Amino acid sequence: MKSSIKQKFSVSYQYDIYFTSGLFTPENRLLSDFFAQRNEGIAPKLLVVIDEGVVACHPALPERVREYFGLGPAVQLVADILLVPGGEAIKNDWESVDRMIESVDRYGIDRHSYIMAIGGGAVLDAVGYAAAVAHRGIRHLRVPTTVLSQNDSGMGVKNGINYRGKKNFVGTFCPPVAVFNDNLFLLTLDDRAWLSGISEAVKVALIKDAAFFDWIESHAERLRRRDSDAMDYLIFRCAELHLQHIAGADPFEFGSSRPLDFGHWSAHKLEQLSGFEVLHGEAVAIGIALDTVYSAIVGMLSPHDAQRVLTALQELGLPIFHPLLEGSDTGHPLLNGLEEFREHLGGRLTIMLLRAIGRGVEVHELDKQEVLRAAAALQEGVNLVS
Amino acid sequence: MKSSIKQKFSVSYQYDIYFTSGLFTPENRLLSDFFAQRNEGIAPKLLVVIDEGVVACHPALPERVREYFGLGPAVQLVADILLVPGGEAIKNDWESVDRMIESVDRYGIDRHSYIMAIGGGAVLDAVGYAAAVAHRGIRHLRVPTTVLSQNDSGMGVKNGINYRGKKNFVGTFCPPVAVFNDNLFLLTLDDRAWLSGISEAVKVALIKDAAFFDWIESHAERLRRRDSDAMDYLIFRCAELHLQHIAGADPFEFGSSRPLDFGHWSAHKLEQLSGFEVLHGEAVAIGIALDTVYSAIVGMLSPHDAQRVLTALQELGLPIFHPLLEGSDTGHPLLNGLEEFREHLGGRLTIMLLRAIGRGVEVHELDKQEVLRAAAALQEGVNLVS
Repeated sequence: MKSSIKQKFSVSYQYDIYFTSGLFTPENRLLSDFFAQRNEGIAPKLLVVIDEGVVACHPALPERVREYFGLGPAVQLVADILLVPGGEAIKNDWESVDRMIESVDRYGIDRHSYIMAIGGGAVLDAVGYAAAVAHRGIRHLRVPTTVLSQNDSGMGVKNGINYRGKKNFVGTFCPPVAVFNDNLFLLTLDDRAWLSGISEAVKVALIKDAAFFDWIESHAERLRRRDSDAMDYLIFRCAELHLQHIAGADPFEFGSSRPLDFGHWSAHKLEQLSGFEVLHGEAVAIGIALDTVYSAIVGMLSPHDAQRVLTALQELGLPIFHPLLEGSDTGHPLLNGLEEFREHLGGRLTIMLLRAIGRGVEVHELDKQEVLRAAAALQEGVNLVS
Repeated sequence: MKSSIKQKFSVSYQYDIYFTSGLFTPENRLLSDFFAQRNEGIAPKLLVVIDEGVVACHPALPERVREYFGLGPAVQLVADILLVPGGEAIKNDWESVDRMIESVDRYGIDRHSYIMAIGGGAVLDAVGYAAAVAHRGIRHLRVPTTVLSQNDSGMGVKNGINYRGKKNFVGTFCPPVAVFNDNLFLLTLDDRAWLSGISEAVKVALIKDAAFFDWIESHAERLRRRDSDAMDYLIFRCAELHLQHIAGADPFEFGSSRPLDFGHWSAHKLEQLSGFEVLHGEAVAIGIALDTVYSAIVGMLSPHDAQRVLTALQELGLPIFHPLLEGSDTGHPLLNGLEEFREHLGGRLTIMLLRAIGRGVEVHELDKQEVLRAAAALQEGVNLVS
């Protein structure tokens, strides 16, 4: 008898990301066609969960969702539409997750049924988690309503909730079955939410696509002034680059490399230190600025390129410094973020830096003194080219 | 601008199942070699969780685990070994799951660290769930200690816990990184646990491998009398057939077909109706008997083959009837199991029946009257050949 058996298999995933306007207007056939094409004989059930923050801006939304799904026989909307708190609140709210799992039980939602989340990234994360674990996985549809979730988090394969204040400590890798990006939701965002979502596009351009960075640079003012066409292209290209990265590398992140986390080691910590007063996208802009200046200080990136990055961020109306970056070199709280970041990713510390615009490079340690110098340079608003 | 993006990728999984004796004896190099081969530069952390039921039979086990991992530098055992309740108790015990997640936090267990579960299938399920969701997945090692977990559940890719009494209502699909089957743990099982684990081997033989059924039939007495060599082969071959099935078909069960659930629709219900007084393997034996007789009654299976199945089960010392199968055709509680089974799997009801020994066939409905006739036939102990 052999003393071991080798097991090996692959699991294939496929999902479409749709870009539309007015997803729930009766004449928009995207969703009804989606369900009609996937019909397996019995109309599947659909549980809809909506971000309360979205309902505050679109009070008629639950009713329009009901009307939309009332028109066609391809899917059965269950009686209750769940409303859940938006933003970081839901990530700490295990009761909402429990309420979703309880609804799966009550309405007999099975593994061939659907749970749709309409909301910002935090709501998509929490609903995605409930959908991933109930019955070991219900089909999950995402309708992201913010710039950040339409170009970044909503495209990805991760979900998660916080645990004792630790961000995304509990979650899974579980792709959605489809994503519907509706640009009308962006019109009701406040300026901070609109602008802060742009930083993930800057990030992915900087590490992967110099031409996209050039485009962002030349459209910075239009983006800041909320030009919808510019934002449509920004979201599309950013989503595309994210999706290519996920498909091409290590979708479920078994390794230690995490290029898309450029600028994020300090961003995560900054969000947490500020009690989530600093928005994720704002923290990412500051994190990008910090790691860009660091890249220049250690001689990896030309001062000219670094200055282009800082200027673009500022022209986009994004912050590049926060008082929490100040401090001495003795026990600077920001630096604890490095070890927390390593622990969250697992394995060896791996940090993305810049060698040029459009070209990231990974390193395995940062010089803490130089990080503090980079922070000080940002505080002083130093001109790197001079 | 295009109005959609198609995303597509595959995720590859690979894990080895080892068969050994005395895994934690100092001279057994299996585990130390395993960690040495996977060394990535830094010795990873290891959190060990043990089934209290196993410790009751092997009181020195925690100390032997400590001594074993104290010998080599390839892995760092964290200070606490967690003991958790075994059997169905842990599946209802969300506090134990929370305690594991809390340990991941306290000991800085990261995604490249390991959580090892030593125990029966229920403990593997619960620890596997905690490992799957903490940090979106810690590397999970399984040391199954029962016949059932060594030949069946411990090989698979599922984990789960109960929710409001509903079995495995919450869980994920998440392969382990290795499985270590140690046959010495089987010696301390009581007779019910030893015997009941055999029913999953009968099941997989009946639907996939006539030669393996012949072997079980001719070794029934030896297996019943606890011959270790016979059990070693039974576990190896049953594990191999399970692993082949998982790799070949639909590992994460996106479809509705679930061939390995032959005999399980009634088994799940019977376990639940008995308050888990009936062990899973016993319920599966009864479920196999029921669906075998049903297959014969509806003319799908020859009476001769059906009789062979019933005789083999009985010679193995397995039950083929339980008083909960009795009852009238008006609202028989067992029959509710059909809809619950459909809902758990999702999609269209799909039930495996037998066309011959070694050859299963899927159907999409059962005739409830004939199910009750099959139950009555088992109660009367009818000889199907006569």
